[in-house]
Amino acid sequence: MTSRSEDVGSSGLPDSGSPDGSESATVYRAAAPGTAGRVQVVGTGLIGGSLGLALRARGWFVTGSDTSAERAAQALRGGALDSVGEDLSAQIVVVATPASSVAGIARRVLTQPGRPPDVVVTDVSGVKGPVVAAVDHPRFVGGHPMAGSEQGGFDGADPELFTGASWVLTPSPGTELAAFDRIQSLVTSLGADVVVLSPEDHDRLVAVVSHVPHLVAATLMNAAARDAEHDAALLRLAAGGFRDMTRIAAGHPGIWPDVCAENAPAILDTLDHLLSDLEELRKFVSARDRAGILRFLADASEARRALPSRAFRPEGLAELRIPVPDREGVLAEVTAVAGGIGVNIYDIEIAHSAEGQRGVLLLLVAGTQATGLRDAVSEAGYPCTVHNLS
Amino acid sequence: MTSRSEDVGSSGLPDSGSPDGSESATVYRAAAPGTAGRVQVVGTGLIGGSLGLALRARGWFVTGSDTSAERAAQALRGGALDSVGEDLSAQIVVVATPASSVAGIARRVLTQPGRPPDVVVTDVSGVKGPVVAAVDHPRFVGGHPMAGSEQGGFDGADPELFTGASWVLTPSPGTELAAFDRIQSLVTSLGADVVVLSPEDHDRLVAVVSHVPHLVAATLMNAAARDAEHDAALLRLAAGGFRDMTRIAAGHPGIWPDVCAENAPAILDTLDHLLSDLEELRKFVSARDRAGILRFLADASEARRALPSRAFRPEGLAELRIPVPDREGVLAEVTAVAGGIGVNIYDIEIAHSAEGQRGVLLLLVAGTQATGLRDAVSEAGYPCTVHNLS
Repeated sequence: MTSRSEDVGSSGLPDSGSPDGSESATVYRAAAPGTAGRVQVVGTGLIGGSLGLALRARGWFVTGSDTSAERAAQALRGGALDSVGEDLSAQIVVVATPASSVAGIARRVLTQPGRPPDVVVTDVSGVKGPVVAAVDHPRFVGGHPMAGSEQGGFDGADPELFTGASWVLTPSPGTELAAFDRIQSLVTSLGADVVVLSPEDHDRLVAVVSHVPHLVAATLMNAAARDAEHDAALLRLAAGGFRDMTRIAAGHPGIWPDVCAENAPAILDTLDHLLSDLEELRKFVSARDRAGILRFLADASEARRALPSRAFRPEGLAELRIPVPDREGVLAEVTAVAGGIGVNIYDIEIAHSAEGQRGVLLLLVAGTQATGLRDAVSEAGYPCTVHNLS
Repeated sequence: MTSRSEDVGSSGLPDSGSPDGSESATVYRAAAPGTAGRVQVVGTGLIGGSLGLALRARGWFVTGSDTSAERAAQALRGGALDSVGEDLSAQIVVVATPASSVAGIARRVLTQPGRPPDVVVTDVSGVKGPVVAAVDHPRFVGGHPMAGSEQGGFDGADPELFTGASWVLTPSPGTELAAFDRIQSLVTSLGADVVVLSPEDHDRLVAVVSHVPHLVAATLMNAAARDAEHDAALLRLAAGGFRDMTRIAAGHPGIWPDVCAENAPAILDTLDHLLSDLEELRKFVSARDRAGILRFLADASEARRALPSRAFRPEGLAELRIPVPDREGVLAEVTAVAGGIGVNIYDIEIAHSAEGQRGVLLLLVAGTQATGLRDAVSEAGYPCTVHNLS
């Protein structure tokens, strides 16, 4: 949704894909080197490297660095960078380092003399609450692409890593609309599917769908390995199901101390629920409660079959148009209202008017939920309209 | 290993792949209809149906039945059966029904008037201890192909379902060697990899690699589905890892009440270990013990990477040749000795001599473990020799 020229771009106004309303915006999809703008990437591992490849293919001039000089050199040789080092004139800085170092780097960039006054910083780390709180800056937009890991090496870098992947952005009440818009446009241009969540919701949800499943996979694998020491036949019996369940445990363990430490509250809460659910299931088995076991497994089977095969959009979508007042916090407020009534936002965009930050916030939601969201958002102080899309 | 003619078959003696030393043995791999012998399949679902397809392709005359007449008719139309009903002259009867009905059917066949006196019965159910104990017959050989499920419908039937799969056989001390040999030859001819375990070892190992992982997958899926009711974004964040971990939960829930009831002791024991391991991991997270978390996940990563990509054979194999005395129990005793000292049996075969059941038991094991096993087996009363294979 980076080129909705029918909305605002038909009379010389900047295209809505514009990162900052400057001239560079109109070349978002051009591939001529450096013509899209300048991005600095800190950390050139799997995600930073893939970003470099994808951005350069879209015409960005990409400068990057890494704590390992060899890895930065590898990214340069591999075509992910135009230059190694810092780029003080970059409009966007992506911090693609492990979570523990993100806040320090982001704060340094945002206060660094010589940077453009509207420079926007984002990151790719897997836990958002502590990072967003620690940076606490209107031009920092927390991000988390649900693909790869910031600690994989450059060797796995792939310009298509993000195509079709969900990429969470976590604006906070203080986030500048223009800053969010710039990152949202960048992410969308990579083919990723933007999901807007509060940092806290993000952390709770990834504990459920990512962190705790990973810990469980590791636990299953360790238990099987321990048993296999006593009985070599065990691993020969490990068929597809066991392989599927433990595959993620093969990943690089290096990010997990950070993730577990930073997302400890949500992980502990989710683990406790899981332990309690397993205890309940244990009681069914212990009591030979066939009906209880069948119900438990039938529920799971039904839920798994209903799991969409990938991030999907429902058939009938509607667009909510919310005139954006000239103050901060609207984005976080509107997305919180949507989350509160269970409305999923399939796409989000800010269509600029000519007057700088003023504009229209466009939300794409399921047609069946659009009027409910319109009423709730209007009630929250943002009168808006619904437009059904054909 | 169905045609080791250099051992016993070079002078007109039956090929070692012979199920019973009769003429039909020599056509094991012929595809002419009905020339390999006669098999009756009870239950024509996924496994029974796949077996019918695979056996008919190898020249067997296959008769089958199902509690659903329609499903039996479907198997006939689908080419898995030559005939619907019972075949009193079948040499082998495969009971491919849910676990709870196996013992009754097997006992009835084994005592049915008009059956050949050497008819052999096997089954395909996922829990072996209770079934083997309930049938308790020298010509019943418990089996468990680690592929598909006895409750999948015929629609998924596939003659290649067993190619490369592990297929556990669970002889007990009373099992007749000739009966075991006949089933082992049949299974091997389907391209499956025979794994010989005691019924108790089988049940313990499948609890670890199959039953408890399945219950955990269902628990994770149910927890996520519950959360998704409150936050629609959750399922959009479910990336590959979560999908992998919950995939098996989509399976047909119908077999699980039986499996959980019949394998309850091993499942409860494994669940208790898992719960205790998860509690330990919870302590690491709660204490922000980065070193503990890293060690736990690094162990899992290493173990998962070491998991063979499928059933594998080590490079250097050696063959143990054990002259088989004319009494029962040798098979269970020898495999128990091997299991007791942690030796994996990669293949097993009985090379017949001309005198009926007497012959040589051939075990294929890792070269590095062969002399240890030879000493242990000899000490147990079965003097034997090692032959290193090139």
